[in-house]
Amino acid sequence: MATVEWDEGAGGVRLIDQTRLPHEEVYVVCRTAVEVAAAIHDMVVRGAPAIGAAAGYGTALAAREGRLAEGAALIRASRPTARDLFWAVERVEGASDPLGEAHRIARESIEACRAIGRHGAALLPRGARVATICNTGALATVDYGTALGVVRAAHEGGGEPFVYALETRPRAQGARLTTWELRRLGIPHRLLADGAAGLLLQRGMVDVAVSGADRVCANGDVVNKVGTYPLALLCREHGVPFYVAAPCSTIDDATPDGGAVVIEERAPEEVTTFAPPGTEAWNPASDVTPARLVTALITELGVRR
Amino acid sequence: MATVEWDEGAGGVRLIDQTRLPHEEVYVVCRTAVEVAAAIHDMVVRGAPAIGAAAGYGTALAAREGRLAEGAALIRASRPTARDLFWAVERVEGASDPLGEAHRIARESIEACRAIGRHGAALLPRGARVATICNTGALATVDYGTALGVVRAAHEGGGEPFVYALETRPRAQGARLTTWELRRLGIPHRLLADGAAGLLLQRGMVDVAVSGADRVCANGDVVNKVGTYPLALLCREHGVPFYVAAPCSTIDDATPDGGAVVIEERAPEEVTTFAPPGTEAWNPASDVTPARLVTALITELGVRR
Repeated sequence: MATVEWDEGAGGVRLIDQTRLPHEEVYVVCRTAVEVAAAIHDMVVRGAPAIGAAAGYGTALAAREGRLAEGAALIRASRPTARDLFWAVERVEGASDPLGEAHRIARESIEACRAIGRHGAALLPRGARVATICNTGALATVDYGTALGVVRAAHEGGGEPFVYALETRPRAQGARLTTWELRRLGIPHRLLADGAAGLLLQRGMVDVAVSGADRVCANGDVVNKVGTYPLALLCREHGVPFYVAAPCSTIDDATPDGGAVVIEERAPEEVTTFAPPGTEAWNPASDVTPARLVTALITELGVRR
Repeated sequence: MATVEWDEGAGGVRLIDQTRLPHEEVYVVCRTAVEVAAAIHDMVVRGAPAIGAAAGYGTALAAREGRLAEGAALIRASRPTARDLFWAVERVEGASDPLGEAHRIARESIEACRAIGRHGAALLPRGARVATICNTGALATVDYGTALGVVRAAHEGGGEPFVYALETRPRAQGARLTTWELRRLGIPHRLLADGAAGLLLQRGMVDVAVSGADRVCANGDVVNKVGTYPLALLCREHGVPFYVAAPCSTIDDATPDGGAVVIEERAPEEVTTFAPPGTEAWNPASDVTPARLVTALITELGVRR
């Protein structure tokens, strides 16, 4: 399985359609920057590093179309939160060989994830019971994963981790994608409702929590999937380490703190799944975990406390 | 709409089937204790005070069937957490006129809710933005509601409250039932995912949170719908009052604290809605909010801090 991969024959970037998982494994090829921007917006591809890689290829496609500025602007407007998106567009915009640069971003992303996995796995006790939110595995990256990459590296090293996966409403990436990946990897796990994280921590059922990040601010605040902040707060309350695993491309020195970040508000229809027709809803995609709740940041360069 | 009502003609207790709301308004009549126990277990009727009233009628039906002990035992075994259930069964078991006692329980419950509403509404500032979890309205009681009764009393008194309703996975009582009730009452509201409560508090969008209770322990710990504890913790972190509204029948002096309460674990299928078939899940129905996080308890007798 490749989440984001250049398809030379098709002349575009091939994405696994994450809106159709776990029930169908369908791939789509985006041959234009417009198609890539739509795929990011509609969450066909999601997860900050995967969005970054797709945005890199989308910008390369814009360059091939001879309308680099316009295509890059479209991709920048597709989703606001993930730092990796803006970082990748900028790298490819400034490159003499746009497609080559997009390839480099994708390759580097895989290497970064493997390094994050190595550094993070060393933090997990043997048999660690790990809580995690959203999806941060191969599907959220080009391959391997960030927070789930840490679990995967622990598993591959014989550390026998066990995962408690939060469902992650409204789009249920934990239920749809994380459980799907964990089963393929043979890592034991249980799914739970987001609200059940309180009892989970309360009952001492978790040794460590690991999340990914959409954006790490200059002061260490972490912008990530909505629900990350309550999980981090519960971890502090119960003395459980809360780690954030993300590549350096997610670190945004230009944003001083979480208060300065635009929080994406998505369509209410994502939330009204079970509600009477016409119900009004508030659907922010992210929240801010203050730096003081983050035990350490795990990047490809190591562990920063 | 009556949530729990004796139907003399049908010879049983009539319940609105809450598993079919908000899409269908269907009523069922339970004519035996077995049927009442099943309705409680399957959450046709839910909400601690509504369960209490139904349990009272179920016990009266058991008495009529001439097998009081057996019927009462069945009802006691239907769901473990709501204190009101055990309290109502005991009252009717010990009464010389079982059906009359069940009627008294139902009538008293309505009066208690109206008093809770009055006492609670006095705590809300004008135009209060109120966060709430699960359903605590007329559907959770015989009529009027507990936490939602507070909002309703504020609304009826011209206080113009606004409600942020947490979806309350896995059974989505907030999305299915609370929004349905609020719309009927003309109270403005917005639905949000449980995990979005963090950003909601973080952004200062809430003035007060009010929840119901399944059981209030002797030390003040509150056992309630899973997700209540994280909401209370967020309130403390952001200096927002967290009130619990419940009738005195919910207070259980025989249970010293939350650690002594049996937390119901329900079927994993409630949680795996979006997950691949066969996914394992953990599905606790309740959690424990420590007394220190509760600003005040609102009962029919007044406000106890």
